[in-house]
Amino acid sequence: MLNNYGTVTNSTIASLEGIVGEKNVLTGEERENYSGDESADVGCTIPDVVVRPADTVSVSRIVKLANEQRTPVTPRGSGTGLSGGAVPIYGGIVISLERMNSILEVDANNFTVTVEAGVTLDSIYQTTAEYGLYYPLYPGEKTATIGGNVSTNAGGMRAVKYGVTRHWVLGLEAVLPTGEIIHTGGKYVKCSSGYELTQLIAGSEGTLAVITGVTLRLMNSPGKSEILFVPFNNLHDAIRTVPEILREGLLPVGIEFVERDILDMVEEFAGLEIPMNDYAAYLMIMVEADNEDEILSISNRIGDICLKSGAVDIFIPGSERAKRNLLEAREKFYPAMKHAGILGVADIVVPRSLIADFVEQSKAISEQHGLPLIACGHAGDGNVHLSLLGKETETNREKANQIMSLIHESGISLGGAISGEHGLGILRKDYLRIAAGKSKIELMKRIKLAFDPNNIMNPGKVLDLD
Amino acid sequence: MLNNYGTVTNSTIASLEGIVGEKNVLTGEERENYSGDESADVGCTIPDVVVRPADTVSVSRIVKLANEQRTPVTPRGSGTGLSGGAVPIYGGIVISLERMNSILEVDANNFTVTVEAGVTLDSIYQTTAEYGLYYPLYPGEKTATIGGNVSTNAGGMRAVKYGVTRHWVLGLEAVLPTGEIIHTGGKYVKCSSGYELTQLIAGSEGTLAVITGVTLRLMNSPGKSEILFVPFNNLHDAIRTVPEILREGLLPVGIEFVERDILDMVEEFAGLEIPMNDYAAYLMIMVEADNEDEILSISNRIGDICLKSGAVDIFIPGSERAKRNLLEAREKFYPAMKHAGILGVADIVVPRSLIADFVEQSKAISEQHGLPLIACGHAGDGNVHLSLLGKETETNREKANQIMSLIHESGISLGGAISGEHGLGILRKDYLRIAAGKSKIELMKRIKLAFDPNNIMNPGKVLDLD
Repeated sequence: MLNNYGTVTNSTIASLEGIVGEKNVLTGEERENYSGDESADVGCTIPDVVVRPADTVSVSRIVKLANEQRTPVTPRGSGTGLSGGAVPIYGGIVISLERMNSILEVDANNFTVTVEAGVTLDSIYQTTAEYGLYYPLYPGEKTATIGGNVSTNAGGMRAVKYGVTRHWVLGLEAVLPTGEIIHTGGKYVKCSSGYELTQLIAGSEGTLAVITGVTLRLMNSPGKSEILFVPFNNLHDAIRTVPEILREGLLPVGIEFVERDILDMVEEFAGLEIPMNDYAAYLMIMVEADNEDEILSISNRIGDICLKSGAVDIFIPGSERAKRNLLEAREKFYPAMKHAGILGVADIVVPRSLIADFVEQSKAISEQHGLPLIACGHAGDGNVHLSLLGKETETNREKANQIMSLIHESGISLGGAISGEHGLGILRKDYLRIAAGKSKIELMKRIKLAFDPNNIMNPGKVLDLD
Repeated sequence: MLNNYGTVTNSTIASLEGIVGEKNVLTGEERENYSGDESADVGCTIPDVVVRPADTVSVSRIVKLANEQRTPVTPRGSGTGLSGGAVPIYGGIVISLERMNSILEVDANNFTVTVEAGVTLDSIYQTTAEYGLYYPLYPGEKTATIGGNVSTNAGGMRAVKYGVTRHWVLGLEAVLPTGEIIHTGGKYVKCSSGYELTQLIAGSEGTLAVITGVTLRLMNSPGKSEILFVPFNNLHDAIRTVPEILREGLLPVGIEFVERDILDMVEEFAGLEIPMNDYAAYLMIMVEADNEDEILSISNRIGDICLKSGAVDIFIPGSERAKRNLLEAREKFYPAMKHAGILGVADIVVPRSLIADFVEQSKAISEQHGLPLIACGHAGDGNVHLSLLGKETETNREKANQIMSLIHESGISLGGAISGEHGLGILRKDYLRIAAGKSKIELMKRIKLAFDPNNIMNPGKVLDLD
């Protein structure tokens, strides 16, 4: 039995206190703050104990102890995840990386930054900016830690041009389930020196190792940015415009799409005023370039393509404030929907040419089963967020589960994958059976056991061993 | 004993003939063509049998048979590798992918091409160009297969802007050592749906699975390109110029460096005339952009930086022919050196700010041990090729091994890695002990066994199991 764990004893607590000091071992009510994440549809579990180490050696000692006692370990960043990855479903020890929040080095000559895993994105943005350097990804939540971002291979709204977290991770420091500390990769993009552990641990959602340090690639700040906010009379036209833009060789940072209903929710929830909030669907196109001329030229060309493809108008914010307002609205999509009441969010990615087909199929499925579904997402990279609206009742939950299952089947049959950016966690792990055959799932299990024979590392996430 | 293999019997041969037909099972002298690669300093081994399947199902059946009989399997593309990865050192079966050379689909809407693993780079360049699309990597040998490129995570001279092979691989079809066929990834860049098998198999040098199909990401053709060929009076100045260029936010496709001695060898070997062949060291800087104005502006800015940093002159080829001539000269570095007589080539990668230090340390080491060393490589990405000159004698071999060992220690102590692009194969696997601690090596062994418990897949490459 690989998930038949013992409880945490007083003697374990004493050992943990010996490692990190009494005040960094939480056994009281504060544990509630470490029991869930930001998913709308995943429960919380109070861990037996929360430990807050300040360095990698302490993490190593904690994990070693847990392994000896076969106690589950759940690593945790800021808890901003959306798939239950940080929920300690088997209790045990939560290792919070919150105190490991130092930026260790900005290396301007090699365009890298090396940080502890508990550093927030906001801190990375601010520190690198002081050097004129830039970490171009923005998964949507500045308070998230980089450790969490790497663990879920976070994506966000800038993937069209810049890819996802794993593309910017050059190296890791990680603690294996045995307590051994390893270093992978380094300050280089080229490497062919054995199995690619960096990329294997990235995206493994804390099930293979505890990430304690990260070296990220950086770039020079692009200097100029612009946003085009483009209304359409229907979602189909909006989405069909995307391949036209990309085909022209223009490479926006991101192309987001959204239905009006979501904007209404955002206006109500966040008190933001959104321009031209009167049409069925919108594209929000973000552009970056080195100078004003280039950005003007790209923006104009994109605007022309949109108008030819059925756009009603083009709104370009005239001020930094108006730009900020639009981005803030984008950030509020999820909290506004959650506030309004949603039963679940799909995070499916499909080949981007098939987004319109996929959204239409999904709407048909949800309509047939009697729940409304609204769509937004990353049109430029195929990552679609479909939210099922409704209150949490038994009937609705049943309907939602059925719809979600069918939508996942539909996305996967279009050549897509379960999760574009949120990870499988506990919320999506069951879909793995739809997406991957037995050979692949069994292989993943063997890889898991190659790292973690006692199944102590974030058990019950990504896949179940039996 | 994990490498105590049986010999290939007549009954095995008959079974193989049943799978691929008699004429695609080679047991005679033709096997010699499948016994080595292009390394200067690695031997050949004639396999018991060479099999040339035409489809994935045949590969699966061959591997399944080999696994049942515990016969080593060595997958092979064009044999252009430089680390002995395709040398069947334990005999057994070589699976040549040469007949699996179809381009299966160019998907212009999703910017992808899907091919069989035996397709050559040349074929990919030509076919994608017909669609106005572009695979931007060039590891230096157009006859190489994409399967081989993915297996070694090939790099080349365009990594500064475009990265390495793994950054362009979106998905794989692969045959596991059990014969099971798996598909990983898909036509999307965003994915967070279980362990990253694509990136784990990429770079594993045929030791985890036989890659049978590859989906690559493409981009629009950049339209314009230029080369700056820049002489310096010493290597130090040449290399020190590189961070200056990158710091300015200019992003050339590649920045190569080379010492004059190598150019002399190329002129003699290939009969090419190289301009301004009179200085100690050179940078060759390749630039790409969408239009003439942009390329002129970037080239001028780079030229100015070079002159400020000690360049003697700037040569910009006036014609496509002159440009081609320069690139051809670059391609001949290795064959010319091999022809002149080299005892080995290091493929070390270091943080690019440390290249000058590393080359200087390496020259001191080789001088101390009495063998001349010449340097060229990819200055823009830290990947340095150091060649030891000399004839193959017992004394020289001993010296060469000593020097190579010390140079690897030096590179790794500077935060580098053993191989930037050629892979470990048999030639570099022993350096893994210098580069990786026991924890990491043992973890890699467990990963190997999670794929291949009988150690039949390209045994003796990357790492030894005992």
